[in-house]
Amino acid sequence: MTVTSAERAARAELLRATEPGFSGMVRHVREVGPEQAVADIRRRGRIGSVDVEALSLRLLDHDGERDLTAAAQLGARLVCPGDEEWPAALDDLGGVGLDCFGLWVRGPLPLVEACERAVAIVGTRAATEYGATIAADLAVGLAERGWTVISGMAYGIDAAAHRGSLAAGGPTVAVLACGVDVAYPKAHRGLYERVIANGLAVSEHPPGAAPQRTRFLVRNRLIAALSQGTVVVEAALRSGARSTARHAGELFRHVMAVPGPITSSLSAGCHQLLRDRPDTVLVTKVDEVLEQVGPMGEFAERARGPVRRRDLLGPTVSRVLDAVPVMKAAKTERIAATAGMRIDAVSAGLAALAASGLIEASDAGWRMTTLGRAERRADPGRGDELPLGWW
Amino acid sequence: MTVTSAERAARAELLRATEPGFSGMVRHVREVGPEQAVADIRRRGRIGSVDVEALSLRLLDHDGERDLTAAAQLGARLVCPGDEEWPAALDDLGGVGLDCFGLWVRGPLPLVEACERAVAIVGTRAATEYGATIAADLAVGLAERGWTVISGMAYGIDAAAHRGSLAAGGPTVAVLACGVDVAYPKAHRGLYERVIANGLAVSEHPPGAAPQRTRFLVRNRLIAALSQGTVVVEAALRSGARSTARHAGELFRHVMAVPGPITSSLSAGCHQLLRDRPDTVLVTKVDEVLEQVGPMGEFAERARGPVRRRDLLGPTVSRVLDAVPVMKAAKTERIAATAGMRIDAVSAGLAALAASGLIEASDAGWRMTTLGRAERRADPGRGDELPLGWW
Repeated sequence: MTVTSAERAARAELLRATEPGFSGMVRHVREVGPEQAVADIRRRGRIGSVDVEALSLRLLDHDGERDLTAAAQLGARLVCPGDEEWPAALDDLGGVGLDCFGLWVRGPLPLVEACERAVAIVGTRAATEYGATIAADLAVGLAERGWTVISGMAYGIDAAAHRGSLAAGGPTVAVLACGVDVAYPKAHRGLYERVIANGLAVSEHPPGAAPQRTRFLVRNRLIAALSQGTVVVEAALRSGARSTARHAGELFRHVMAVPGPITSSLSAGCHQLLRDRPDTVLVTKVDEVLEQVGPMGEFAERARGPVRRRDLLGPTVSRVLDAVPVMKAAKTERIAATAGMRIDAVSAGLAALAASGLIEASDAGWRMTTLGRAERRADPGRGDELPLGWW
Repeated sequence: MTVTSAERAARAELLRATEPGFSGMVRHVREVGPEQAVADIRRRGRIGSVDVEALSLRLLDHDGERDLTAAAQLGARLVCPGDEEWPAALDDLGGVGLDCFGLWVRGPLPLVEACERAVAIVGTRAATEYGATIAADLAVGLAERGWTVISGMAYGIDAAAHRGSLAAGGPTVAVLACGVDVAYPKAHRGLYERVIANGLAVSEHPPGAAPQRTRFLVRNRLIAALSQGTVVVEAALRSGARSTARHAGELFRHVMAVPGPITSSLSAGCHQLLRDRPDTVLVTKVDEVLEQVGPMGEFAERARGPVRRRDLLGPTVSRVLDAVPVMKAAKTERIAATAGMRIDAVSAGLAALAASGLIEASDAGWRMTTLGRAERRADPGRGDELPLGWW
């Protein structure tokens, strides 16, 4: 299936006239196709409950060909369903009634390749140092393992994620709520230039379009759809990042959240996600992210504590060691009574412990060596630590 | 069913001779009863795989009557299955083969009453300021709502939990790995005195018994069993607090964990619990704890962000507001094209916004008032915040 130039121009006009994700228009385009839908808008005919007259105003002095020419001049292109560059992942949006009519794309990578192994990292604009560091670290780790980082170019978590990916030489995809030629926010002009030089800026809105409040939220479904999973790093209770997570869940993508201090209002949204949605997975490092989104069989190495010398003792010898007083010396019989073990077993254990240098014999009986006491001190708290393999 | 004095003395001897939770002895006591089991130990007869000779050493110069008399002198008592004070909750331990043969109890409250509404708060001894504050805050909140706080009297989280409960005048139960007359660690002598004056110290070990490494872990099952739910506040990857959580899960109690910074190794155990065990609930405040352990119908008020003036606008008027430029003025037609809405709807919206003081008319068209701009600034980031009820 190839996209005709008439269809491409019609899709450009659709993207200019409509707001994405509006169900009445989605239904109509599915029914009559993009070219007829645009003709209906221009004719100001009725399209169900859609306010066609208002939409037609947006096409008064624009046509699709002009948008395509303008885009080509700035090195952008319109990727449509049916194009080789169109990621099948975007078709999943049809399953939730939020069809994407086409995507303006600017940058050197084919969109479909950039999204083949991609994770979205999103979060609050008012990021703390903690959140920004984590977002950047995760992005660096993903880029190093060959994964694309997708985000929204906003202040805070988004920017940290893009920067981390770029720093590790990875491709990063910025999904914008304005035209792909608009650097928004303005302070991110430099970041934007690096993104389109090394990765991609993509948007449903025509070149020159300004961001609008509702566009950020509708845009979030693209961030979710283009990636195999979404990680929310920091989010206030009303953060838009949670809408990205919601879309990801509806699209059967992996939803992940990074916890933080419960005293931080900017982690409250992450904690609420983890409480409210049983499909949200708590992640603390890149391996845990990849365990979710990677091919089956890629499991994160399970986190584990340090190995201590006493871990190497068997349970019997370990029990004998526990019965040896720390400071005073004790006779074998006394140690056996404390341990609740037979004298012969205790004698064997004491010999093994003496051989390992943890205890020594004295006139008054067995006592701990300096090494033995140091080992006990290394234990953060007596009995506070589990034997290896206990859990 | 009343407990005979012979049985009570036998249980005292069982608790002295055996280490709790040892399956061979558990089976034997179930089979022949406590009196016969003690006779078998004294006779050094075989009890399956149990090393009876070693256990008999512990009874050489002790008998149960003596322990009971000594306990009575320090105001302690032995609570046995069949006693009014025996909590039925402890019988659940039989279901997992970890029977409790009896509990030494010291303090003014009946054990069964103290545990009727009880939450365990546990965690690392090496608590951070963050963890200690949270443990104390949760304990205060639980005490204020009439809940008993159960913990293990250790440094760190345990001590903070007991102190929080005491500070709010609540009863607190300390489950010890040593005799109920032993203040361990020594630095907690003052805390220990306050616990036995206002709450309870309980233990399976006879008066005078010293703590041993393995006893802390076996003790943890009592903390889990006596409470309706266990909250892990801070725990390293090998923290013993996680064994309490494991027991709680096996006993069908609620398991809860408090998240923290992923950069803190002392929150790593909490995060691993939340990752590994799908039945672990993330909690951030006392209401969320009570939502788990409280009677059905007690739901935590859902956390929500601040309500802003623009939340009070309808979606149409809100959309018009988004189309009004922040700094420059714009004519109605321009605003209609930006919003993609009919002129008449936009005019009505502009009138409503002007009436609310968010915008004003000027010669060049409609523009935002100082109030309108302040409202927009109050939004932590344009589009970063979800409309109320969106989620």
